[in-house]
Amino acid sequence: MLGKCLENVRNTVPLIHNITNYVTVNDVANVLLACGGSPIMSDEPADVVDITSICQGLNINIGTLNQRSIEAMFLAGKRANELHHTVLLDPVGAGASALRTNTAARLLNELSFTAVRGNISEIKALAQGSATTKGVDADVADAVTEETLDASITFVKSFAGKTGCIIAVTGAIDLVSDGTACYVIRNGRPEMGKITGTGCQLSGMMTAFLAANPDALLEAAAAAVCAMGVAGEIGWSCMRPEDGNASYRSRIIDAICNLDGATQGKEARYEIR
Amino acid sequence: MLGKCLENVRNTVPLIHNITNYVTVNDVANVLLACGGSPIMSDEPADVVDITSICQGLNINIGTLNQRSIEAMFLAGKRANELHHTVLLDPVGAGASALRTNTAARLLNELSFTAVRGNISEIKALAQGSATTKGVDADVADAVTEETLDASITFVKSFAGKTGCIIAVTGAIDLVSDGTACYVIRNGRPEMGKITGTGCQLSGMMTAFLAANPDALLEAAAAAVCAMGVAGEIGWSCMRPEDGNASYRSRIIDAICNLDGATQGKEARYEIR
Amino acid sequence: MLGKCLENVRNTVPLIHNITNYVTVNDVANVLLACGGSPIMSDEPADVVDITSICQGLNINIGTLNQRSIEAMFLAGKRANELHHTVLLDPVGAGASALRTNTAARLLNELSFTAVRGNISEIKALAQGSATTKGVDADVADAVTEETLDASITFVKSFAGKTGCIIAVTGAIDLVSDGTACYVIRNGRPEMGKITGTGCQLSGMMTAFLAANPDALLEAAAAAVCAMGVAGEIGWSCMRPEDGNASYRSRIIDAICNLDGATQGKEARYEIR
Repeated sequence: MLGKCLENVRNTVPLIHNITNYVTVNDVANVLLACGGSPIMSDEPADVVDITSICQGLNINIGTLNQRSIEAMFLAGKRANELHHTVLLDPVGAGASALRTNTAARLLNELSFTAVRGNISEIKALAQGSATTKGVDADVADAVTEETLDASITFVKSFAGKTGCIIAVTGAIDLVSDGTACYVIRNGRPEMGKITGTGCQLSGMMTAFLAANPDALLEAAAAAVCAMGVAGEIGWSCMRPEDGNASYRSRIIDAICNLDGATQGKEARYEIR
Repeated sequence: MLGKCLENVRNTVPLIHNITNYVTVNDVANVLLACGGSPIMSDEPADVVDITSICQGLNINIGTLNQRSIEAMFLAGKRANELHHTVLLDPVGAGASALRTNTAARLLNELSFTAVRGNISEIKALAQGSATTKGVDADVADAVTEETLDASITFVKSFAGKTGCIIAVTGAIDLVSDGTACYVIRNGRPEMGKITGTGCQLSGMMTAFLAANPDALLEAAAAAVCAMGVAGEIGWSCMRPEDGNASYRSRIIDAICNLDGATQGKEARYEIR
Repeated sequence: MLGKCLENVRNTVPLIHNITNYVTVNDVANVLLACGGSPIMSDEPADVVDITSICQGLNINIGTLNQRSIEAMFLAGKRANELHHTVLLDPVGAGASALRTNTAARLLNELSFTAVRGNISEIKALAQGSATTKGVDADVADAVTEETLDASITFVKSFAGKTGCIIAVTGAIDLVSDGTACYVIRNGRPEMGKITGTGCQLSGMMTAFLAANPDALLEAAAAAVCAMGVAGEIGWSCMRPEDGNASYRSRIIDAICNLDGATQGKEARYEIR
């Protein structure tokens, strides 16, 4: 079933509007192309309403937010909501600054999101209104581990239920919940943390998966998480001794590019709780 | 002759000022270095007049335009015109939003361009003042194919004549015209469409080719298009089974880096109509 | 001793706030991860004070400065100074425009920097208040060569003494001085000049090295320069015939990722003058 979600992206080529940070934007564009979607980027308030209108999904990432792009996020988000488009929030660095925490909270209050994807510290910052995050990485104290798994599932389900969004918390163990069920996903490699932007890439890709699978949103979000993790495993298996994080970055996008639904279905490692 | 244009870039190392989108800017810089040019980026109105003054060419790309960068485009363009520098327009997404269509039209009206490079939908949007484009990719209905080739050549020649610019329409078949002659170029690979920014890269490279070949502008523009296509073919021939669009992206720039005039001349596939 | 500086980065994982250009920002982030640091980017005035407060170092790079990011540089710099954080200036393009030259000079006057890293033309522009630079590359007339080495060392020592910063001038021969001693470093490859952003990457990495080695700042700055040069040599040794500047870019970051202190110590080629 997860593999079918990928195939639906390749068959429908959803056009995704990204208001995203300039650090990882090129990788977001290439991973969207790799998975079968089509990217467009625009963060000018006078441009975003037109742009999002021709798209099927909107990916809002606050990684290098500024006053102009924040205005654009609200304008594009409202228009996307009017058009019943898929809208995803990636609250990069929520908890690390007041502007990020507050902007993410305002976006969540004023717009209707299909899904929110972040690391555990960012999602906790959103849930609690404040938090301590170590920059854009999750705080070790927050980590989802086998020991904290039950409590983490309860938290993610509860926050999904409260917000009415799919909540995807990614890390060593990934949790994806719609408030009722929770996918617990164990794909991926720890070395993915040495590449900037695997989270941003996943958010872009998840927006495409959601847009292409409107009748199976939870499965689509979980499929995107599994696809990224499986690609991380395939990419790692191709590494040569001289390769490091820069080559690994390309190998993961390459693996997404070559991934088919059958392989994804076979390699996905998850349980539903 | 086309190979000579590349050699002139390598021998004169033109410095190219790029006001370009943040999605593909790193690749634009690296492809300019690969072909023998030198890149500089600046989009602050208070900076661009000085910067463009020390350059030989200006590449204006509206891919992630904003109010500040639009102002910078006009200021830099006017200065570059005063200095009789090469100026190129890449109207990314013209037709996809009113701001993009109108900005491209205003730039074309108020500045003097050496060349305009875009996909067929963008160029039609410019020619018609409005159009339907699928985001930043060409609309299938507009595509230049063997069936529509004659009409497309007529259109490109006519628009080149009307604007007084070299018009380069790139896609499966590329057309480059100065209003009198039209290069019909059949290099390249369809897989290049799975990489973000091959068009942006070509625009940067074309600016360098034009700046380095002031007495053979049409040939220079065609040579840049052929170089990109030939590099796409060479890069593809180096692909391994595990490679995808991320590796292909690097292989194309690598191929430009290693390309010499003789190889380009030998591999170029074009006719002049 | 230089190898120990790298190990200290890997052991302490300094979080580095980068206000940097959008051309090379992804590589700066990945090289910071490769060397053992952790990157965060923010250039919005309303965000940077919070962000820099949770970091250990601040890397200010004026490569694509604009009015907003300039304001952010001063706000973040003042906060970082209050907190006695490492602060580094990369005056990209100083000498190429009045805005760049003046902004770099104002930053140097109003903030307290741990180090300044640039090419010889940029550093001369800073020292003299004006200069001629060829875009973002060093002017050939300024180059540090065996012939100009003694005079260059005198200049760098003098400017370091005058500013109270470590001054790092990088090029074919690299000079790093605190005003008393001067490291003369001969690692690296000329082909590194065909990749955009090796200087920006080094500035990011140097900020991490300085933050992780507060008791050995000169050694830390020199160690960062040696690490980049050694990685350039290792990366080059892995190049295949079809590779060019795009692959070389990845191979250098890969080499940083795999570099250990022992290798760095063994491969470093420098003298102290």
